[in-house]
Amino acid sequence: MNTFGNLFRLTSFGESHGAGIGGVIDGCPAGTELDMAFIQQELDRRKPGQSKLTTPRKENDEVQFLSGVYEGKTTGTPIGFIIWNQNQHSSDYDNIKSVYRPSHADYTYQTKYGLRDPRGGGRSSARETIARCVAGAIAKLVLKQYGITIQAYTSQVGSIRLEGDYNAYDLSLTEQNPVRCPDASKAEEMACLIEEVKSKGDTIGGTVSCVIQGVPVGLGEPAFGKLHAALGHAMLTINAAKGFEYGDGFHAGLYRGSEHNDIFFNDKGCISTRTNHSGGIQGGISNGQDIYFKVAFKSVATVLMEQPTVTVEGKETVLKARGRHDPCVLPRAVPIVEAMAAMTILDYYLLNRAYYLKGNSSDI
Amino acid sequence: MNTFGNLFRLTSFGESHGAGIGGVIDGCPAGTELDMAFIQQELDRRKPGQSKLTTPRKENDEVQFLSGVYEGKTTGTPIGFIIWNQNQHSSDYDNIKSVYRPSHADYTYQTKYGLRDPRGGGRSSARETIARCVAGAIAKLVLKQYGITIQAYTSQVGSIRLEGDYNAYDLSLTEQNPVRCPDASKAEEMACLIEEVKSKGDTIGGTVSCVIQGVPVGLGEPAFGKLHAALGHAMLTINAAKGFEYGDGFHAGLYRGSEHNDIFFNDKGCISTRTNHSGGIQGGISNGQDIYFKVAFKSVATVLMEQPTVTVEGKETVLKARGRHDPCVLPRAVPIVEAMAAMTILDYYLLNRAYYLKGNSSDI
Amino acid sequence: MNTFGNLFRLTSFGESHGAGIGGVIDGCPAGTELDMAFIQQELDRRKPGQSKLTTPRKENDEVQFLSGVYEGKTTGTPIGFIIWNQNQHSSDYDNIKSVYRPSHADYTYQTKYGLRDPRGGGRSSARETIARCVAGAIAKLVLKQYGITIQAYTSQVGSIRLEGDYNAYDLSLTEQNPVRCPDASKAEEMACLIEEVKSKGDTIGGTVSCVIQGVPVGLGEPAFGKLHAALGHAMLTINAAKGFEYGDGFHAGLYRGSEHNDIFFNDKGCISTRTNHSGGIQGGISNGQDIYFKVAFKSVATVLMEQPTVTVEGKETVLKARGRHDPCVLPRAVPIVEAMAAMTILDYYLLNRAYYLKGNSSDI
Amino acid sequence: MNTFGNLFRLTSFGESHGAGIGGVIDGCPAGTELDMAFIQQELDRRKPGQSKLTTPRKENDEVQFLSGVYEGKTTGTPIGFIIWNQNQHSSDYDNIKSVYRPSHADYTYQTKYGLRDPRGGGRSSARETIARCVAGAIAKLVLKQYGITIQAYTSQVGSIRLEGDYNAYDLSLTEQNPVRCPDASKAEEMACLIEEVKSKGDTIGGTVSCVIQGVPVGLGEPAFGKLHAALGHAMLTINAAKGFEYGDGFHAGLYRGSEHNDIFFNDKGCISTRTNHSGGIQGGISNGQDIYFKVAFKSVATVLMEQPTVTVEGKETVLKARGRHDPCVLPRAVPIVEAMAAMTILDYYLLNRAYYLKGNSSDI
Repeated sequence: MNTFGNLFRLTSFGESHGAGIGGVIDGCPAGTELDMAFIQQELDRRKPGQSKLTTPRKENDEVQFLSGVYEGKTTGTPIGFIIWNQNQHSSDYDNIKSVYRPSHADYTYQTKYGLRDPRGGGRSSARETIARCVAGAIAKLVLKQYGITIQAYTSQVGSIRLEGDYNAYDLSLTEQNPVRCPDASKAEEMACLIEEVKSKGDTIGGTVSCVIQGVPVGLGEPAFGKLHAALGHAMLTINAAKGFEYGDGFHAGLYRGSEHNDIFFNDKGCISTRTNHSGGIQGGISNGQDIYFKVAFKSVATVLMEQPTVTVEGKETVLKARGRHDPCVLPRAVPIVEAMAAMTILDYYLLNRAYYLKGNSSDI
Repeated sequence: MNTFGNLFRLTSFGESHGAGIGGVIDGCPAGTELDMAFIQQELDRRKPGQSKLTTPRKENDEVQFLSGVYEGKTTGTPIGFIIWNQNQHSSDYDNIKSVYRPSHADYTYQTKYGLRDPRGGGRSSARETIARCVAGAIAKLVLKQYGITIQAYTSQVGSIRLEGDYNAYDLSLTEQNPVRCPDASKAEEMACLIEEVKSKGDTIGGTVSCVIQGVPVGLGEPAFGKLHAALGHAMLTINAAKGFEYGDGFHAGLYRGSEHNDIFFNDKGCISTRTNHSGGIQGGISNGQDIYFKVAFKSVATVLMEQPTVTVEGKETVLKARGRHDPCVLPRAVPIVEAMAAMTILDYYLLNRAYYLKGNSSDI
Repeated sequence: MNTFGNLFRLTSFGESHGAGIGGVIDGCPAGTELDMAFIQQELDRRKPGQSKLTTPRKENDEVQFLSGVYEGKTTGTPIGFIIWNQNQHSSDYDNIKSVYRPSHADYTYQTKYGLRDPRGGGRSSARETIARCVAGAIAKLVLKQYGITIQAYTSQVGSIRLEGDYNAYDLSLTEQNPVRCPDASKAEEMACLIEEVKSKGDTIGGTVSCVIQGVPVGLGEPAFGKLHAALGHAMLTINAAKGFEYGDGFHAGLYRGSEHNDIFFNDKGCISTRTNHSGGIQGGISNGQDIYFKVAFKSVATVLMEQPTVTVEGKETVLKARGRHDPCVLPRAVPIVEAMAAMTILDYYLLNRAYYLKGNSSDI
Repeated sequence: MNTFGNLFRLTSFGESHGAGIGGVIDGCPAGTELDMAFIQQELDRRKPGQSKLTTPRKENDEVQFLSGVYEGKTTGTPIGFIIWNQNQHSSDYDNIKSVYRPSHADYTYQTKYGLRDPRGGGRSSARETIARCVAGAIAKLVLKQYGITIQAYTSQVGSIRLEGDYNAYDLSLTEQNPVRCPDASKAEEMACLIEEVKSKGDTIGGTVSCVIQGVPVGLGEPAFGKLHAALGHAMLTINAAKGFEYGDGFHAGLYRGSEHNDIFFNDKGCISTRTNHSGGIQGGISNGQDIYFKVAFKSVATVLMEQPTVTVEGKETVLKARGRHDPCVLPRAVPIVEAMAAMTILDYYLLNRAYYLKGNSSDI
């Protein structure tokens, strides 16, 4: 259950205050050149301390590859890797060893396992997502060879939201502000809100949107392997995720069928659709149009204010968290959403290739 | 990819116009009494022709068990079953053999596989969900022994929606109207809307909500086996599903952390929470509170009006669907949502039991 | 656990005295023409009553396909099928309902599950293998397109064994005698032994050998997915199998490394080996030479003589089996060994294709 | 494919001359005390340089745990670990970079992946098995709590073999000689043979036998999850393994059914069998008797003599291996066989527990 994927697989391990976070990537096609600068850049997008909008923790997250790479190329064998933990303030967590933090995993872990690593949330820490960014970066490098690109961005913080879908924005501007929102003026508003919330020791949530382009027709499997179900599963495994929708999502039901249907037409010899309410997936299988979806994130559970709670023994008490925490996960969630999308798409790409008989799927 | 689950598993097969729809249930605990009347009742909730709000197709869906049952009890070996197809009007589909229906899976299947069974959508037909209802009914029978119950209901049709969450309604009223909405007056409104839409040959979507009660603390696995991710995956495999959210879902981000956090307290010796914004799952693991979630469904793609499209050869043409179709999937989606939830919860119940060491999880 | 394979998968169900034996084949490449005569012929090779060497039970095993086939071709969707049971003499088993037959699965099933279907061994009956023959026949049809062929034969019955490996015999003669041994004179000896044993109500075992030809270089995955480990697993799941060896097998250790090593040479532009002690697999991956292996089968546990045993309550008693049983499984095991080999090779063929990058594995 | 197991799972990584060998153990029950001295002792049994019978390479194999352990106990979360490589003489392998060593995996890896790590065999090196010993040691610690013990020993080297089965020997003497053979005089003979072979630069193979005691009735799943099939698969994934047999194995077919059957009797209130030809498994499920099996190993492929071969380009050449190699894998294979057995038994123990309903399997 710490393994993700069918043919391209990440098995991850590690706690926030143990030796480090790492993983094993199995099933990466051989001969892929590992662009180390790119991989590091992906980790940097996720790392804390990037701006005043994120936690001031400084973590110099560098990945050490342990296997599966020879002379700069993947060999087809499993890629082990680790990001060593540094800069841990375990004492920050001393006061929460014996109490359950509200809306954290302390209580559920303790009850499930009979014991837990209380330092920094242990395995349930969002620091676990760093392993996903490593695997996602490698998946992106493979997908790039197939002409597939992935771009996520912050589309809502609190009640401040982007109107319109991804076509209304120049997504190449996403990285130009610390919120990772392609609309500079909305980004400014969002940043103000995050700072206001932070000044009160509070936190805020929102949504991340994502677009995948260049996916050939045919990815996704019938019944239980629908491509959007795989994407939804992937996104919902990210810490603090509360919802997933693709295409028109929760608004799809407002349209009548005659409005929602995407009409096919012949686009200079290729079959295409005039609209894309479906979000690039029909019957669970990619149809060659852009795939887009949205992920909801709750506000961070760690607030720097007093909260009533109970101790491990069930005694009522009051907790005041210390430590260095994000007032809003959204900016740092953007690269994680991309990473999970990249792993999922590559996994289904490989699956589809396995079943491909020459002459069938002309696009692939 | 036609297999769902880890330890309690359904492998399904069948097309809408082939011999039948069936499956194999593997991993059902031995000694479970199969209440055949209950199983049939679950199939009846899903079957077409129940009311004027659903397709007038009459399908007398009776399940035939082929193995795994002896003297009325499960034996622990795989349970094969089939629901034979009847009342197929394959000729209804003759005119769509060579054209792609908009927002259906015709085009993606044809391109992926190089051929397809055009009769009634083949494998992509919603008729496939009948196998899920059989497996879900059996899962419910097992879960009942553990004190776990599942109840879904229609919470939105078009723009008509229930305000407030499940606590505001008496869910036992759900089955008292054909829409399966626990609020009689809203149900009436929804029914009117569906009939209006139907009279125009059009279709409409909405949402189904679901509540799971009696789940012990501890179901769900860290990282990629989070319970809500498993539920989300399960729901998104249902035909026409476009989104999934649990707890506060897409609204979670509007709350500040201090508002969203569920405060623990000592409830007569048991640890409980004062609110349940989390939706019964924290850190991916059930916390003993009610689990609730919502699934978005698009409007049915088959509309009985003229629509432009292309032929298999890419020539532009106009299609007018015939046949007997649902104007709205919501009423019949309710039992399917429950079935997928039941299978998921039982699967994770068994998983958790596998790892349980005496003395750890006192609830289980 | 009733599912076999990774990408080409069989999920089987059924008991010997229930409605029938069936299964679901998932992952069969689309567009494969189903040669029904060939499939039936494979079932006929396995069916009882073929000669006086096998059980006199007459079972007219005809497969009914339930899905996944359209106009004679596989569609890529799951292939459901069933072989209905007929000619069951359940009364034959009345006397063993309350006693445990020695070296059968009665005791282990009863203890594991708390109940069992006593008729004909229930799920543990060798009749279960008929589902494997269906899936194996389809796998053979796919493999044939890739130039891969599989041939098994009886190589030992009791102490009568073929000397030398498969190269010493004309395997095309295998089907010319009821023992399925390519050496006519040894076959005669084996047949005599089986008849002698049968006349005493006793049974006998032996070995089946198998050769797979035309496998390209590259099938098999490092570490836990070694091709011979997959083949060994496959064979050991066949009822009554007690051992598996490939290449020189248990004799390999008698040779020194300098004798056992297969020397590479350039065979008119292709790399080949001068000997094939390795059995066509090196480092767990096929090397392009013939793959060959041997499977050991014990004598059938049902003997028609008095045997001491205990009742379900643990009381000592004496059992005399009735019914119609095989004195020797070998002749009928030959097609089952082939079927499991075909499924395994196809599964690993698809796996290898998934990871294949243009320019790497030139043979495939 | 670098993951082993269903519920107790090892994902391994690493090459012999990369940074190290490591893995992730997922599904280890929480609360297990990690006896570090025991784990190190298991690694020491496998490590090279133990005696003059093994390679003179000195590898100080110490495991570093990276996660999943808190205050000396497992937490239920994944256990990452690494054994850093040291004492690598990569230059030893310079001369084999461009040639294929006979009966090694060089040719198959190169062809499958289009490139390979030539240093020390890369991923196909037997050094990979060290990860198995770590996971196996932890599995043993868990199984010990359930009263299950595992003991393997060298039963044959070349043509020198132990007569009789494990009952004829005092297995506690196994570790008293470097061959790991419980018969001191046979051990002496085997040692002489290994030294003689070594002096010629040659190698030799043989068999390892293994006994598992204390396994309750009920482990193993019908059809494709038979316990012996799982054990066979596990053993055949060990480098140089050529065969597997359990119970009477390849000799089972020599006995008539009436001789081979294990007669049940009432042993002071418990059902037991008078003989154990079955090897503790009936119908694929453990029957409470001792489980025993044998694994065949070929002679090591690396011989220190001249051998003809071909270069990567297909040119014929002569190779003389250098480096420090084992003349016989048997002594060091003993702990690896135990490790794989321990992982398999624990995995099936957990599986069985998942499906267990109170009142069924009284032994567990």
